[in-house]
Amino acid sequence: MYRRVLVGLLLAVVIATPSFAQSAEPDTTKVALDTIWVLVAGMLVFFMNAGFAMLETGLCRAKNAVNILAKNFIVFAVSSLAFWFLGFALMFGDGNPMVGLSGWMLSGADNSPLMGDAYSGVFTSLNWTGVPLTAKFFFQLVFAGTAATIVSGAVAERIKFVSFIAFSAVLVGIIYPIGGHWAWGGGWLAGMGFLDFAGSTVVHSVGGWAALAGVIVLGPRLGKYMKDGSVRPILGHNMALATLGTLILWLGWFGFNPGSTMALDPAAISLIALNTNMAAAAGCLSAATVAWLALGKPDLSMILNGTLAGLVAITAPCSVVSMGGSVVIGLVAGVLVVYAVLFFDKVRIDDPVGALSVHLVNGVFGTLAVGLFATDGGLFYGGGVAKLMTQLVGVAGVGAMVFIVSLIVWSLLKMTIGIRVSPEEEHEGLDIGEHGIEAYSGFVQAPQEARAEIM
Amino acid sequence: MYRRVLVGLLLAVVIATPSFAQSAEPDTTKVALDTIWVLVAGMLVFFMNAGFAMLETGLCRAKNAVNILAKNFIVFAVSSLAFWFLGFALMFGDGNPMVGLSGWMLSGADNSPLMGDAYSGVFTSLNWTGVPLTAKFFFQLVFAGTAATIVSGAVAERIKFVSFIAFSAVLVGIIYPIGGHWAWGGGWLAGMGFLDFAGSTVVHSVGGWAALAGVIVLGPRLGKYMKDGSVRPILGHNMALATLGTLILWLGWFGFNPGSTMALDPAAISLIALNTNMAAAAGCLSAATVAWLALGKPDLSMILNGTLAGLVAITAPCSVVSMGGSVVIGLVAGVLVVYAVLFFDKVRIDDPVGALSVHLVNGVFGTLAVGLFATDGGLFYGGGVAKLMTQLVGVAGVGAMVFIVSLIVWSLLKMTIGIRVSPEEEHEGLDIGEHGIEAYSGFVQAPQEARAEIM
Amino acid sequence: MYRRVLVGLLLAVVIATPSFAQSAEPDTTKVALDTIWVLVAGMLVFFMNAGFAMLETGLCRAKNAVNILAKNFIVFAVSSLAFWFLGFALMFGDGNPMVGLSGWMLSGADNSPLMGDAYSGVFTSLNWTGVPLTAKFFFQLVFAGTAATIVSGAVAERIKFVSFIAFSAVLVGIIYPIGGHWAWGGGWLAGMGFLDFAGSTVVHSVGGWAALAGVIVLGPRLGKYMKDGSVRPILGHNMALATLGTLILWLGWFGFNPGSTMALDPAAISLIALNTNMAAAAGCLSAATVAWLALGKPDLSMILNGTLAGLVAITAPCSVVSMGGSVVIGLVAGVLVVYAVLFFDKVRIDDPVGALSVHLVNGVFGTLAVGLFATDGGLFYGGGVAKLMTQLVGVAGVGAMVFIVSLIVWSLLKMTIGIRVSPEEEHEGLDIGEHGIEAYSGFVQAPQEARAEIM
Repeated sequence: MYRRVLVGLLLAVVIATPSFAQSAEPDTTKVALDTIWVLVAGMLVFFMNAGFAMLETGLCRAKNAVNILAKNFIVFAVSSLAFWFLGFALMFGDGNPMVGLSGWMLSGADNSPLMGDAYSGVFTSLNWTGVPLTAKFFFQLVFAGTAATIVSGAVAERIKFVSFIAFSAVLVGIIYPIGGHWAWGGGWLAGMGFLDFAGSTVVHSVGGWAALAGVIVLGPRLGKYMKDGSVRPILGHNMALATLGTLILWLGWFGFNPGSTMALDPAAISLIALNTNMAAAAGCLSAATVAWLALGKPDLSMILNGTLAGLVAITAPCSVVSMGGSVVIGLVAGVLVVYAVLFFDKVRIDDPVGALSVHLVNGVFGTLAVGLFATDGGLFYGGGVAKLMTQLVGVAGVGAMVFIVSLIVWSLLKMTIGIRVSPEEEHEGLDIGEHGIEAYSGFVQAPQEARAEIM
Repeated sequence: MYRRVLVGLLLAVVIATPSFAQSAEPDTTKVALDTIWVLVAGMLVFFMNAGFAMLETGLCRAKNAVNILAKNFIVFAVSSLAFWFLGFALMFGDGNPMVGLSGWMLSGADNSPLMGDAYSGVFTSLNWTGVPLTAKFFFQLVFAGTAATIVSGAVAERIKFVSFIAFSAVLVGIIYPIGGHWAWGGGWLAGMGFLDFAGSTVVHSVGGWAALAGVIVLGPRLGKYMKDGSVRPILGHNMALATLGTLILWLGWFGFNPGSTMALDPAAISLIALNTNMAAAAGCLSAATVAWLALGKPDLSMILNGTLAGLVAITAPCSVVSMGGSVVIGLVAGVLVVYAVLFFDKVRIDDPVGALSVHLVNGVFGTLAVGLFATDGGLFYGGGVAKLMTQLVGVAGVGAMVFIVSLIVWSLLKMTIGIRVSPEEEHEGLDIGEHGIEAYSGFVQAPQEARAEIM
Repeated sequence: MYRRVLVGLLLAVVIATPSFAQSAEPDTTKVALDTIWVLVAGMLVFFMNAGFAMLETGLCRAKNAVNILAKNFIVFAVSSLAFWFLGFALMFGDGNPMVGLSGWMLSGADNSPLMGDAYSGVFTSLNWTGVPLTAKFFFQLVFAGTAATIVSGAVAERIKFVSFIAFSAVLVGIIYPIGGHWAWGGGWLAGMGFLDFAGSTVVHSVGGWAALAGVIVLGPRLGKYMKDGSVRPILGHNMALATLGTLILWLGWFGFNPGSTMALDPAAISLIALNTNMAAAAGCLSAATVAWLALGKPDLSMILNGTLAGLVAITAPCSVVSMGGSVVIGLVAGVLVVYAVLFFDKVRIDDPVGALSVHLVNGVFGTLAVGLFATDGGLFYGGGVAKLMTQLVGVAGVGAMVFIVSLIVWSLLKMTIGIRVSPEEEHEGLDIGEHGIEAYSGFVQAPQEARAEIM
């Protein structure tokens, strides 16, 4: 309110102070409020690295735990440098509708936290948020890191450590930023009115498409799909870590979605936080129910993945739907994830942690859900199919680009340094082969079914 | 300071601006400050779900780990829907001194973040906090979820998954909100001057009474209490998870207690955070010392539970006591929890994780501590017994209601769908029986003492 | 901006309000902003207790897990009381250049949150931050606790529980505060212009020197250094916990460094957060690379410790260096930590978790890095050696004091209550000997190599 008071006062009496142009200087209090919100939200998103690490490790076998942990850990370090060197400029730097071409390594003019017309600099696409450039970079960096960790789970238990690092650098440095530029960096999708509030497409389905390409080039784990057509379940080794990881991810999403306002807008962030939670809860319950009915028992990994499915699906529409809409989106997501897991096994796409079912399938669904559930313009709210079509274009455009480029990169890596460990190493476990240590020294492990493994 | 300046300025010069009624519009900056505080605090409380999950899982046996994890995880999803459908309206909706009767599913008039007299809507009991309604709901929801997770630990290792879910829905949807309405929703206890700042009674003892009823109806685990009168210790399977869980809970309490201001009041939240910490530290040290003297060794589970006891006990009085008072409250809580654990085993109330000793016993103690240690009006500060009597009425009233209703609900569940797994399933472990998977696939477990188990 | 507007208005028109002295009352909004930032940052630092507990436990053997967990947990409770009784007054109370001598148990005059000249009270050295005294204490307490947890890892797997508690109380109550007074409490180092922004020296190297003294007095673990000169690797038992712990520490550092502004300064905290992250990432990658080259495999524990090395090294200079400088500092830290680990083993200083290599070596390096990389006055930026010399004096002065006093305290403890468990207990594991329980009840452990252990 004080701002209005000030305006009134200014109009009324202050003739002798002509230099107080509103745009000339940022509102100190607003910058402070927005900055703490963006930083705290960014820290929560950073913590999702721990969530992914625990989830993926827990859902895989003990003999590969060190490798999965090392992948999930180092990938954020790789992302930090790759996004600084290349990614941020390609994504948010001024350029053309296809790609950003300025602001390498945060160089170039930038008078943040000034906003809107008062902003002048090379990152015009981020002039809607009034925080320092370093805060903008920090928040976008933790998002970029997320995309790479999604890939990690899908290719787990057989990928070479060095190849994963190389792919991650390309993904975060080049592929992710280009898709991101289209939607968030002033590119052609932004121009069409494509809405992906916090990244169902930009982050999650991008990670999912890159992972799908990797899984196809890499092939399934030894012993997963049998010659007689049967599918052998390969159980995770630590459901406590998997559950902890999912709870950390749920927490992190309270930064991911509400933080994407990049401004401390009380009404918006409260609603978005609540929508995020309701979709997660609904996804959890519908996946539990469907798994209970379809598989006979309330499977814990389905409960966890159902929750994540709800979270991924609400990520794009969280700012434009109602609480009721969020619950429905979550319910659908939870159903989708269960059948997606079954589907991928049917077509022999081996995804050890269900990353494709969670991030790809529900990243697509969530993006389309904007066109269906947006209270202003969604199909189910009488808005016609226009919004939905725009969303579909975004899903298809980003998906095609990411999938094709990823296929090429994975294939190049396969032809050069190789992407898969030897069958012997895969059987013995990547921990000894790739890192020379085991994760749980001193604990006695059950002997493996050697025959089934090296079929 | 600027507000006073503005008032001065207004008085001095601004005659031409009659429309600036203070109450007509919220103070934008204050709403933003209060909202970020409430949301961040709420996120910390949400994270307590991970704390409870790790603590309870770690303190139970490996063969029941999946079940405990699944219970602790799904219960927040159940809580989210139950509190949205029913709980919030029953607790905070306008109604009568016994129960709220309006605002179902957040419907009804509400002009939050306007406060006090400027507020008009159906949640009058929350008109003292100036944040959006969605933020109020989010914060109260994570509190409601806590009550249900308390029950989870006490009934662990023998309860049927579906029955736990059903009870949790009733607890969070109906029982908890009614007790909460009495104290926080403008009910009869609020009218008496009962003070429970952050929920020693409203949250913790409510969870504790509901758990006690459940444990009584359910009976002890097989093999816990022997025919010859001896008590067999049943050891937890992962003290690292238990310790991690307790540290997460300690962290979460920095949201639980200081966040209950629901306003960014710097002096209040700083003192409350510090009081919370000092009581936790004191509870930790006194429980460690008592356990060392009484049991011969500094037992880690007692150290953890002593800390939690201090945290539960300071929850009600954290805003009205001094740092010194907080330390004394924590010291007493740490002693209480050790002897409560021994007591419950003596009377053959089987509580695998000590939830009753922590949340029920110290929830009661903490509520009474307001009457003893409040620097303004507490018995030890020369205030007489009036405050203490009011607190006692609150403890007894809420306790009687929750215990009796919970007994009825548990008994109804027992008569209908049943609440206990079969002896065979209990022996084998609930993970296989209820969920069809084990928590630690690949690790070799020691054979159980079959005889002792099925005595 | 509103403050400038107000100043303009005041100058222009408000003659009738002479009592609005700027310093007479704090700016309510600024106090609220600074307080939430300090508290949230403090909570993140508190959470580092969980990080240290998981990291240290994971890197040691299963038979000592309960002991390490108990040590790491209880040490913060001990710290809370010791820093309240003694530490805070010795560190920040008004006194002389060597030690603070007022403000015991937070008593004495203090009109915080008033700042600068407007402040009057006994904690003059903290008059630059405008938050309530309780918030100042909370933030400084979580820092003090960190110093003690650093010691915990280095002395793990052979120290007596009671002796560790006793040393921790002395460290947090007396030794740490004296070093802290010199640099942060208005002591002689502060007077020289010594800069240690967030505590590379004050916290990390202090913990490191105290740990070094302890390790020397205590001796190596049985079976670590063989008579034939060879070094036997003793593997950690849970790399998942170690990785989780490191990610929690990385998160916690976003409170540790940016929070040390103790004010919500948007530009400063954003840059510091980013510098902190870049140094961590660079340390991670350089340690991974060096370990890969030197040891043949990308060792996970080196990856984790490289990250922590980068974090420790950037702690002192984070506020005065560029992003590029931060990356270089991190790269150097990652190299240093690998060779430091090898060096300590060569000189038979047995540090189970690498705490000396991380906190001592890089605490020293980070403090000197201020003199090398500070964009204003650093040697590499044309500033000459003056700054570097001052930093060197601080490193040496604090180091000598802490190391000598710690040696004396450890020796006194050794002569009185003893500091080392018996060889039998060490062989069997401290969990049974010191606490009477094991960490992983039910899991089958591999038999130990008895001969190697009791060489």
